[in-house]
Amino acid sequence: MKENKIPYKIYLDEKEMPTAWYNMRADMKNKPAPLLNPGTLRPMTAEELSGVFCEELVKQELDDTTAYFEIPEEIRDFYKMYRPSPLVRAYCLEKKLGTPAKIYYKFEGNNTSGSHKLNSAIAQAYYAKKQGLKGVTTETGAGQWGTALSMACSYFELDCKVYMVKVSYEQKPFRREVMRTYGASVTPSPSMETEVGKKILAEFPGTTGSLGCAISEAVEAATTREGYRYVLGSVLNQVLLHQSVIGLETKAALDKYGIKPDIIIGCAGGGSNLGGLIAPFMGEKLRGEADYRIIAVEPASCPSFTRGKFAYDFCDTGMVCPLAKMYTLGSSFIPAANHAGGLRYHGMSTTLSQLYDDGLMEAVSVKQTEVFQAAEQFARVEGILPAPESSHAIKVAIDEAMRCKETGEEKTIVFGLTGTGYFDMVAYEKFHDGAMTDYIPSDEEIQANIDRLPKVD
Amino acid sequence: MKENKIPYKIYLDEKEMPTAWYNMRADMKNKPAPLLNPGTLRPMTAEELSGVFCEELVKQELDDTTAYFEIPEEIRDFYKMYRPSPLVRAYCLEKKLGTPAKIYYKFEGNNTSGSHKLNSAIAQAYYAKKQGLKGVTTETGAGQWGTALSMACSYFELDCKVYMVKVSYEQKPFRREVMRTYGASVTPSPSMETEVGKKILAEFPGTTGSLGCAISEAVEAATTREGYRYVLGSVLNQVLLHQSVIGLETKAALDKYGIKPDIIIGCAGGGSNLGGLIAPFMGEKLRGEADYRIIAVEPASCPSFTRGKFAYDFCDTGMVCPLAKMYTLGSSFIPAANHAGGLRYHGMSTTLSQLYDDGLMEAVSVKQTEVFQAAEQFARVEGILPAPESSHAIKVAIDEAMRCKETGEEKTIVFGLTGTGYFDMVAYEKFHDGAMTDYIPSDEEIQANIDRLPKVD
Repeated sequence: MKENKIPYKIYLDEKEMPTAWYNMRADMKNKPAPLLNPGTLRPMTAEELSGVFCEELVKQELDDTTAYFEIPEEIRDFYKMYRPSPLVRAYCLEKKLGTPAKIYYKFEGNNTSGSHKLNSAIAQAYYAKKQGLKGVTTETGAGQWGTALSMACSYFELDCKVYMVKVSYEQKPFRREVMRTYGASVTPSPSMETEVGKKILAEFPGTTGSLGCAISEAVEAATTREGYRYVLGSVLNQVLLHQSVIGLETKAALDKYGIKPDIIIGCAGGGSNLGGLIAPFMGEKLRGEADYRIIAVEPASCPSFTRGKFAYDFCDTGMVCPLAKMYTLGSSFIPAANHAGGLRYHGMSTTLSQLYDDGLMEAVSVKQTEVFQAAEQFARVEGILPAPESSHAIKVAIDEAMRCKETGEEKTIVFGLTGTGYFDMVAYEKFHDGAMTDYIPSDEEIQANIDRLPKVD
Repeated sequence: MKENKIPYKIYLDEKEMPTAWYNMRADMKNKPAPLLNPGTLRPMTAEELSGVFCEELVKQELDDTTAYFEIPEEIRDFYKMYRPSPLVRAYCLEKKLGTPAKIYYKFEGNNTSGSHKLNSAIAQAYYAKKQGLKGVTTETGAGQWGTALSMACSYFELDCKVYMVKVSYEQKPFRREVMRTYGASVTPSPSMETEVGKKILAEFPGTTGSLGCAISEAVEAATTREGYRYVLGSVLNQVLLHQSVIGLETKAALDKYGIKPDIIIGCAGGGSNLGGLIAPFMGEKLRGEADYRIIAVEPASCPSFTRGKFAYDFCDTGMVCPLAKMYTLGSSFIPAANHAGGLRYHGMSTTLSQLYDDGLMEAVSVKQTEVFQAAEQFARVEGILPAPESSHAIKVAIDEAMRCKETGEEKTIVFGLTGTGYFDMVAYEKFHDGAMTDYIPSDEEIQANIDRLPKVD
């Protein structure tokens, strides 16, 4: 098919959609380090984890040898409502930049949650339902995960309780209404509803919240109620597993036209999108079948890969969750309030952290004003109004394409466009008004939080 | 292909996309009545119209004999960024309703403008650019048309000036930011920027505006500036022509699987979506090749088809535009402020008005609280958060499907899902809070406005 003109949008047929998720860990020589019980500092057992997570999800979380997990039919049916997502050839952006590079993006925003988060939300809701649970609790930052989970729970008729990072709750009131449309209850975090919330509020009365803190509250709410479990939209191995559907579709679409990417770029908060997008490509790399440049892009205001430490840390601010070995800024790190939207998490997926530490991928950090510049440039030629999170990847894709312009190289660049910016207009307004500023934490701020890391090794 | 299982989403290949728009008027025995010059009461000539509209668009407006207009390649290229739009089989809704009916919807919301409006915006911007104009002016109600036009103008680097109905401007501040992202300027209407705006404000100081009034302002702004023309997102023949891409794609997708619809349902404000969706089906009906039930759905608060009069009327409140023969509530009619979002126009496309008067289609009106009930029901099972406008069609599609449940008939229902409700969360919030009310104009209110219709016949 190589000679065919590449269409603007490559869609797979329903029957070409993946029927199994791919688990990168199966092909990793250096496996990600296990989660540790914060009390005993010993690896968390399936039994211990089952108090917090659904049973099937615990299995997926701990399994680092099975390469493929079949996607249950009920989940595949739901996927068919909004997947396959298009792999778009950015003809208009290429033309505007005057680059010889060929740019593709996998667009995950064409569903009501507005992002890729739905891919894992529906899986987690399915397993909760299958286990006979009454409901689930979770946290949400920018609100995309909370919306996705609300949709998934509504589909399976599960109760859904969302703790939303306060700064996002205030900046994005409409997100709450979308969640309500799907029947979820939403609480700004930190709240007085939980013991850990009360404690954090007592210590930091003016806090605008953080993902780590919302996680603590959601975990407490799940473990103190009968018939509830906690679900998480990023960071965890199970989430990366579900999100591999992004990369598997991307690879199938590229293969259909005989295209081999040179560079794969994704934004990284906790790593769910990046881990999903790169999964099959990283698999080839791990098995020595192909090579790709893989780039994680993170905000300069929350730079866990580029300025964090690879060490055991708490996944949450309240220190009630297991310890994970990851690139982290310290669970006490809270990104500046001027930072727009998501990618606010202090740590990073243990799987991606290990891959990064092994030199199998790169990371760069970018400032938010340049991210919004790239977002606007992209919107004006490609039509889609991107989420600020996704725009981190746009920024670096444009940078790489401009480098190709200098060198004349016809590289093929693929990036993940994780979602739309419809609910980020407050941030866009700031940008338009010239009121957006950049924040880069000082070395002292970074060090002070890293100094507080738990002593494990 | 009949025996194939119908996928959840039917996508056409790029090469199956329509290459020409279809003009229903060519097949109509009773042609829509011509626009009249408000001064002379004689049919508007191409020359007269060219002061307001682009030349090519005037040709399209007046031509009621040419059946097909080729879609210029530049427009087809732009279409490829967000089209073909999916024709979705509503398996989940069918299951939830327990109906033997087969329900399909053509979803036009997967683009940043959030609706079908982009189909005509890009065409109108293209012809303006081709004519060498500096920019265009327009009005917008719910904001979808303004957003669409901003995107189209940004793509062709045209100046874009939008008069936005004040009630929507206030209810939807984020819409303004989306338009700004695409470089448009947005003014709440009525404004003090135009003579007609000043006059309306003097007469009705507390008015929340209307489409008719915003049209007057935009037309004045276009005709008093060098290098500008006015563009309109609905009502006009040219708009229905461009929107025929919706129906042509729908028909091609259905034909691909050997599906023949029994009922076709669309919401109707000015008629752009409905006229586009039904175009090729109505064509078959007009030529005696097939029969379909075609249903227009309008809000009970602005019921031009079901309670209006088929007569010549002004297209705008300021009475500066030509007269059109249409179903109208009178250009002085302004829908109640409690009415959420679009479908606020006092009149209706002349083409659709003629077809309705000839008994070739039906019309029903629905109340907004029942529309939001249908919207929420749909969102919870089909995932997509629908625009209030689109939800009018959902409501009637569900009603028809439930009728099939009673009778046991396996009818095939196709409806137009024109857009997403991301920018309608204020209205959804009202609905969730139980604060949404219905408004049905009294017979006296309707009659008083109809009494003010211009005396033409």
